[in-house]
Amino acid sequence: MRFDPATLVYDGRGLIPAIAQDHRSGEVLMLAWMNAEAVARTLETGRVTYWSRSRQAFWVKGESSGHVQRLVEMRLDCDRDCLLVLVEQAGPACHTNRRSCFYTGIRDGAETELMTPEV
Amino acid sequence: MRFDPATLVYDGRGLIPAIAQDHRSGEVLMLAWMNAEAVARTLETGRVTYWSRSRQAFWVKGESSGHVQRLVEMRLDCDRDCLLVLVEQAGPACHTNRRSCFYTGIRDGAETELMTPEV
Repeated sequence: MRFDPATLVYDGRGLIPAIAQDHRSGEVLMLAWMNAEAVARTLETGRVTYWSRSRQAFWVKGESSGHVQRLVEMRLDCDRDCLLVLVEQAGPACHTNRRSCFYTGIRDGAETELMTPEV
Repeated sequence: MRFDPATLVYDGRGLIPAIAQDHRSGEVLMLAWMNAEAVARTLETGRVTYWSRSRQAFWVKGESSGHVQRLVEMRLDCDRDCLLVLVEQAGPACHTNRRSCFYTGIRDGAETELMTPEV
């Protein structure tokens, strides 16, 4: 079946969450949001493109930082309301310069930093 | 710093997305939603507990199916608006009996089934 971005289930803002995962290590790098056009652009260009909720604009990941995400494969879940994008990540994915945005763990009830920024 | 679920950033419905990842294989299993109380219950009980948007009720994963998720570690992202739960997953995570909800890949523009249901 041909894939059509319009067949995904978007929320009231027209957005769907997209989880970015390093296709080699399996590390979960970040979660951001796409609209139907961002999904289409990601598939067409191979450059992972989100919709920035704060800027209300397309966000080609790494466009300013150089920390681009090359799409390896896009997957959708059983409810068609969430995406998983397997990526090749150049440099850190997080704006704090850490490899992943999920660098804080809860251990023994306390927030614990698990990763330091790359230099 | 002690972790307080109230310090997370919830959406207009009081919910935060939670990505469940197999702590050994790194496989992304599913995405579901938690409210502050579900976050607290997950940490207290070690049983991953979501908020079901369709049923408007707490959803202790596997309570009826037996496909429980034991919490290994909860992580939060840089914006505090998304959770990653590393879990030990008993059986399939997906209600279709597949290991992961992300069993559909987009390959050459077509939806492709990547996993079959477990028997």
